[in-house]
Amino acid sequence: MSYDPDNIFAKILRGEIPSFKVYEDDETYCFMDIMPRSDGHCLVIPKTPCRNILDASEAQLAACMATVKKVANAAKTAFGADGITLQQFSETAGGQEVFHLHFHVHPRHEGVSLRAPGVMGDMEQIKAHAEAISAAIG
Amino acid sequence: MSYDPDNIFAKILRGEIPSFKVYEDDETYCFMDIMPRSDGHCLVIPKTPCRNILDASEAQLAACMATVKKVANAAKTAFGADGITLQQFSETAGGQEVFHLHFHVHPRHEGVSLRAPGVMGDMEQIKAHAEAISAAIG
Repeated sequence: MSYDPDNIFAKILRGEIPSFKVYEDDETYCFMDIMPRSDGHCLVIPKTPCRNILDASEAQLAACMATVKKVANAAKTAFGADGITLQQFSETAGGQEVFHLHFHVHPRHEGVSLRAPGVMGDMEQIKAHAEAISAAIG
Repeated sequence: MSYDPDNIFAKILRGEIPSFKVYEDDETYCFMDIMPRSDGHCLVIPKTPCRNILDASEAQLAACMATVKKVANAAKTAFGADGITLQQFSETAGGQEVFHLHFHVHPRHEGVSLRAPGVMGDMEQIKAHAEAISAAIG
């Protein structure tokens, strides 16, 4: 399967679609999922193209995981979360919907389940969550 | 939270508990989950201690992801899988049960859901799956 440069995350990286930015560095970008399954649900992606873990380079994966760790700790601080659930879906059968590698970072609290997927969140709240995580990264 | 050197994955690494090995290199070890939620469900762990993504080093995370990519592609080949679902749970609230960093790799087929967690698998079948993935790594 080849990479489609018109996927929505590629458009976000090019600034053609807006996003609630949490963090970025030379290799990665982190922004909020607008259909959050947890408070603070955000996505970490490489700035360079690849579909998923099946075709990603080791460098792309390493860079994403360094950012995942940073954002996970910041989200834990920002929300007083008790834990983190990380998910990555590769290809449709694996659960993937946008074909640019992304890792889902979910701050978790004891006894609180992930919400159902596919439900649009409150944009003001999502913006506030992005700012909270971003501030905790410092 | 500090690392407990008597967790079961540390015991597996020390050879005190058996496991169905899929792959290993200097930094990582991959073995089968004995309560598989998918055919070929395996775990990738670092050989050095850390609880989860919150305290893992960038090097530990990078090494694990390089192995995840290798195993994911091999599992896809071995089982003719259509995709991969990757999960990582950090702390109890995040879904973690064994406190040594591990990534769950699930080969997925279109229309086949992950099975319920916590159900012991058939050991002969798990052994055969380990051998199939291992052979596909080559």
